[in-house]
Amino acid sequence: MTLKLPALDPQAVEPYTRCGYPEPYRSQVLPREKRKLGDACGLTRIGVNRTTLHPGKASSMRHWHSHEDELIYVLEGEVILKTDAGEQRLTAGMCAGFPAGVADGHQFLNRSNRPAVYLEISNRDREDTAEYSEADLRWNPPGHRGKFTRKDGTSC
Amino acid sequence: MTLKLPALDPQAVEPYTRCGYPEPYRSQVLPREKRKLGDACGLTRIGVNRTTLHPGKASSMRHWHSHEDELIYVLEGEVILKTDAGEQRLTAGMCAGFPAGVADGHQFLNRSNRPAVYLEISNRDREDTAEYSEADLRWNPPGHRGKFTRKDGTSC
Repeated sequence: MTLKLPALDPQAVEPYTRCGYPEPYRSQVLPREKRKLGDACGLTRIGVNRTTLHPGKASSMRHWHSHEDELIYVLEGEVILKTDAGEQRLTAGMCAGFPAGVADGHQFLNRSNRPAVYLEISNRDREDTAEYSEADLRWNPPGHRGKFTRKDGTSC
Repeated sequence: MTLKLPALDPQAVEPYTRCGYPEPYRSQVLPREKRKLGDACGLTRIGVNRTTLHPGKASSMRHWHSHEDELIYVLEGEVILKTDAGEQRLTAGMCAGFPAGVADGHQFLNRSNRPAVYLEISNRDREDTAEYSEADLRWNPPGHRGKFTRKDGTSC
């Protein structure tokens, strides 16, 4: 039976396949499919994506958020979580949470030979910025809302 | 391998098994186990619970929130979603989303013969209240913060 809102079959949501990173970061991430479930349900205060990460790819560059909590729940396959604590392997049913404002960049890597699927969950805050631990990037810094810049503030 | 924060095995989280409802509502819901994954990860801006709902039980009484978006993602088993649109069956991998302020009470029922497991996800807002469509309840109304009252404002 076809579901109707407020219920939703994630497979019915067109995947978002782009990435705002400049190279050489973008190709470390793509191809990647994000199904924006929260948006599809009309939610504006939380974001919930069902994301498929392919073998050899990274969820993002290592980063942390200033105003948004983030939680990842693994649905299928496995990923490696990279933080200051080192590397940990998360299989289906495991999760990880990153409080806003904690300066410990995180990143998930798919080093397996099959796609990994996870939910990525956060609140939404217009004041949010993201700082990148290793990549020469910043997200949404003051004066550059909705954009990535280099760490020195120049466009990229 | 035992995971360490920011990673977490949900099974390592002690379940919350209480319910603040008065009777006759409480026994429609309990027993019910909520593993508060967001709390366990130190998150304060979003709540993410991994909830087990037993056969014959309801997730809650039908309600809607004033300031909190909510999304449910079914992990195991199946539930019936009840809203103004009627009833819909959600199996593992399906979801449903409820924008803050939309006055359409929702409730999940387990009419199957095995436990259902789902994630319940929301932002957190101190101003939030919940209105109940059918039960004689209100949550967190002005003057009664953190409590349930009857619709006429009296304690329960």
